[in-house]
Amino acid sequence: MITRMSSLFLRTLREDPADAEVPSHKLLVRAGYVRRVAPGGYSWLPLGLRVLRNIEQVVREEMDAFGAQEIQFPALLPKEPYEATNRWTEYGPNIFRLKDRKGADYLLGPTHEELFALTVKGEYSSYKDYPVTLYQIQTKYRDEARPRAGILRGREFVMKDSYSFDLTDEGLSHSYKQHRDAYIRIFDRLGMEYVIVSATSGAMGGSASEEFLAVAPTGEDTFVRSTESDYAANVEAVTTPAPPEQSIEDKPAAQVHHTPNTPTIESLVDFLNAADLGRTFTAADTLKNVLVKLTQPGAKESTLLAIGVPGDREVDFKRLEAAVSPAEVSMLEESDFAKNSFLVKGYIGPGALQANGVRYLVDPRVVRGTAWVTGADKADHHVVDLVQGRDFTPDGVIDVAEVREGDPSPDGKGVLVAARGIEIGHIFQLGRKYADAFALDALGPDSKPIRITMGSYGIGVSRLVAAIAEQSHDERGLIWPRNVSPFDLHVVVAGKDEALAAGGEKLAGELSAAGLKVLLDDRKASPGVKFADAELIGVPTIVVVGRGLANGVVEVKDRRSGERVEVAVDEVVEHLRALVRG
Amino acid sequence: MITRMSSLFLRTLREDPADAEVPSHKLLVRAGYVRRVAPGGYSWLPLGLRVLRNIEQVVREEMDAFGAQEIQFPALLPKEPYEATNRWTEYGPNIFRLKDRKGADYLLGPTHEELFALTVKGEYSSYKDYPVTLYQIQTKYRDEARPRAGILRGREFVMKDSYSFDLTDEGLSHSYKQHRDAYIRIFDRLGMEYVIVSATSGAMGGSASEEFLAVAPTGEDTFVRSTESDYAANVEAVTTPAPPEQSIEDKPAAQVHHTPNTPTIESLVDFLNAADLGRTFTAADTLKNVLVKLTQPGAKESTLLAIGVPGDREVDFKRLEAAVSPAEVSMLEESDFAKNSFLVKGYIGPGALQANGVRYLVDPRVVRGTAWVTGADKADHHVVDLVQGRDFTPDGVIDVAEVREGDPSPDGKGVLVAARGIEIGHIFQLGRKYADAFALDALGPDSKPIRITMGSYGIGVSRLVAAIAEQSHDERGLIWPRNVSPFDLHVVVAGKDEALAAGGEKLAGELSAAGLKVLLDDRKASPGVKFADAELIGVPTIVVVGRGLANGVVEVKDRRSGERVEVAVDEVVEHLRALVRG
Repeated sequence: MITRMSSLFLRTLREDPADAEVPSHKLLVRAGYVRRVAPGGYSWLPLGLRVLRNIEQVVREEMDAFGAQEIQFPALLPKEPYEATNRWTEYGPNIFRLKDRKGADYLLGPTHEELFALTVKGEYSSYKDYPVTLYQIQTKYRDEARPRAGILRGREFVMKDSYSFDLTDEGLSHSYKQHRDAYIRIFDRLGMEYVIVSATSGAMGGSASEEFLAVAPTGEDTFVRSTESDYAANVEAVTTPAPPEQSIEDKPAAQVHHTPNTPTIESLVDFLNAADLGRTFTAADTLKNVLVKLTQPGAKESTLLAIGVPGDREVDFKRLEAAVSPAEVSMLEESDFAKNSFLVKGYIGPGALQANGVRYLVDPRVVRGTAWVTGADKADHHVVDLVQGRDFTPDGVIDVAEVREGDPSPDGKGVLVAARGIEIGHIFQLGRKYADAFALDALGPDSKPIRITMGSYGIGVSRLVAAIAEQSHDERGLIWPRNVSPFDLHVVVAGKDEALAAGGEKLAGELSAAGLKVLLDDRKASPGVKFADAELIGVPTIVVVGRGLANGVVEVKDRRSGERVEVAVDEVVEHLRALVRG
Repeated sequence: MITRMSSLFLRTLREDPADAEVPSHKLLVRAGYVRRVAPGGYSWLPLGLRVLRNIEQVVREEMDAFGAQEIQFPALLPKEPYEATNRWTEYGPNIFRLKDRKGADYLLGPTHEELFALTVKGEYSSYKDYPVTLYQIQTKYRDEARPRAGILRGREFVMKDSYSFDLTDEGLSHSYKQHRDAYIRIFDRLGMEYVIVSATSGAMGGSASEEFLAVAPTGEDTFVRSTESDYAANVEAVTTPAPPEQSIEDKPAAQVHHTPNTPTIESLVDFLNAADLGRTFTAADTLKNVLVKLTQPGAKESTLLAIGVPGDREVDFKRLEAAVSPAEVSMLEESDFAKNSFLVKGYIGPGALQANGVRYLVDPRVVRGTAWVTGADKADHHVVDLVQGRDFTPDGVIDVAEVREGDPSPDGKGVLVAARGIEIGHIFQLGRKYADAFALDALGPDSKPIRITMGSYGIGVSRLVAAIAEQSHDERGLIWPRNVSPFDLHVVVAGKDEALAAGGEKLAGELSAAGLKVLLDDRKASPGVKFADAELIGVPTIVVVGRGLANGVVEVKDRRSGERVEVAVDEVVEHLRALVRG
């Protein structure tokens, strides 16, 4: 079927929308793919819906290919299952809640772990029934505090969410691997540049977890990648390699120095270097002890935690939060220092911490045998050459110091550089949390119940439209990968005379008959307007029916490279069919 | 691709669900197509989702075929557009409402007239842009007071809603006709038995309006149809043919009779027949005057309306409500009779009504020249031979008497019989209500604005799954029309030996390679269990790979007729391909 621009419900815009900051948002609105209806709520106009459906179809095919089965749940869900897992409370203001006419509580589903677990429990009972993987491609809702960037972070969006149900941990690993492989095929088919990063689990709690991030400077997620390998990870998941332990024997004895007016690392280093101690100190030689309070879930009281990091690095609070989850972190207040008079602000050292029973964890770089300049637990005093394993022994290691560009890659290859990405997929070994909540068991061969273990896997289908647009555009407009493009070909009739119009119609008809999806610009507009719209809309191949037609040729233009070739009219259908079908 | 019963997420049930009353609900649950999640909220399991998608695809193809363009709106909608049309208020408790984290009001869209009108206004400006028809296939929400019958009347459901935008009334009529024709093709392709009935407009207000009703004894809607023609109509829309006028000259003069103890039509008729007046009276000879109060929209005071109907019929209040809409009808209370002492309860006649300025409308049967027994406005007195046009002259006609089986068909062919149906489609000339609300104008060729006129058209896509099941089942299970069935063929391996299993696999593989959708029952279950499941699931053609395989034949069974034929294995793929493709 030919789609004609003359009747297509599409009006392109010359100006960027006022509320748009990122390229995908600007271009998808300007090119008439989406329109804003409410904060974080967009309508899909004909071109946008075609792209969305194309992506859905790639996702569906790859899910079906490994035996996942598609089903569909309501989006309007009763409260009770989400109360059973405590997510009704945990989600806080991040979900939409409502009451029906009888006053019963409902939510608009953000993800459907509960419903899938309950449904499998309702249908399956024997170990012979397992494993099973179910999925849906569905509209989901989250009441984002700051919906942004058009469809990149909306409040109503389309997700593919799937759930695997296995009898054993090995089974879960296998299901996880199946999803991981399918996701790789999906994102490859969609022509994306992406990385797979180790992820922390967020609010869901569980074990193995990886995120697929589309590399884009406008992405909300930061990650690091190696300059010399495939290594990539969320900053929260980067592990710092420990240096080799050092000999304690040859280290000088610890000495306490009077270091007046040195409350900061910088002032301390300056003071030491001015003091002529026979060597040069840097911030990396100092050991900064940072105190926080931890509150375990359900606990009324918090406990102190001291973290020792090299003085040239800050504690990264996102890394800290991920490391201590589900405990919550808070800062010390003045009253905490008052209560714990052994904490001498600015001069805290391992000695007082350990003497007073404060749990003391150190950065992986603080290995046995390393010597440090640190607080002497006395105002205006520091200790030099305090040696780990001789003068103090930490309670353990915590890897929460900031990660910096230039740090060695954890896989030993190259160094880390920072990058930004858009989360387009997440795969996650949930384990037995939901099965426990609903007593989801299979009856085993010995008639004993086997608790099921679950995985949860998501792809942001509508977000992918924007993520692809972020990766694939130029200053003139969108450039769709073939598998995603709303049309295979954009045929532009470049001129107003009737022979061209007839030639365009004829060609479009032949291309359509050859099974290609054709957008025909048959409008009474100038060639310049038509070319600008074609560049903006971003169909990867543009066919120009223009002056050359009189000589039996049309021009085939590659939207991405801008390359143009003239092709004889009687060969062009086959030429384009080969081009499109690869 | 072959779908194997051994791994399909499907467990059929032997028992009807406790809450199910209608066949489609029982069978769709028993056969594992849907599962209840909440009141009026169902999940679609793999078989159900396939049927739903098949129906969606037929609808989409026929909409696209006449140039309607698919788009998609959010389901979560801001209040403001619905306030502009007053529907935010009018819907009352029938929509789901919610607030976001900032306290802004939202609703879950029941239909999208407002959003479509606003979107067209946003994109289009010139008369040259029109006409346009847009549609979506989308999840919709209504907070039904009594969700019932499974997916037949849910609170979350899938609808195709479309909207036409035209410059002129003639254009609207054309768009309406395009939809009507497309709906006929859709329901024909879906193999449905349906009628198109004239409908009243309900809450939407407008002009031409027809409903498509799937004929089913379990339907919620009653309608009447002719015994001898295609005539069918909602009871509200039936028009009563007026009998010929009669001569006044030959009628006896009106006489008032003392008729003690005759407060009812029956007692009056008995009294008159006992009084030996020289002829026999029936209830149809009496004129019953029914009083109601009408309140116009926005009015504070109600006004009286008197309705004269033959005494053998009641006033049908649904017909009355439809006839006087948007005014609201209420009954008289004792205080109304006290205020209007000329109303002598049980003996109300035209005389007092008209003398006191009460608007008096009569049934179409009360034509000029007809003589009636009616109240004499005096307790225990009636008047006989009160002649329309001589002794009283009504203010007009109102067609609200009950419609009965045996009444003549309005088209003059045959008589009416009552039937029940399920509303599966509704087409409706909205007119300019929504365009007026949003000032949706096109700039005309003379630069003057042209107010757009709209049509609104719906198909209950998810309801169709149930409606088809209501029409197409037997005591053993579902029987899907080919265009709807989740699979083209259900191949049953009837026996446990390995040759049969291998034969089934081979045949399923060949059929699948021939482009047919195959469900293969490869389970280690008895043939009896497999046959029962096949009948329940309802794929129209069942292929039995059984003992005959050794002799080179398989059995092809028609699910609906039960007919079985043996087909040679080397011919069966072509045989089945021809059968399925027609």
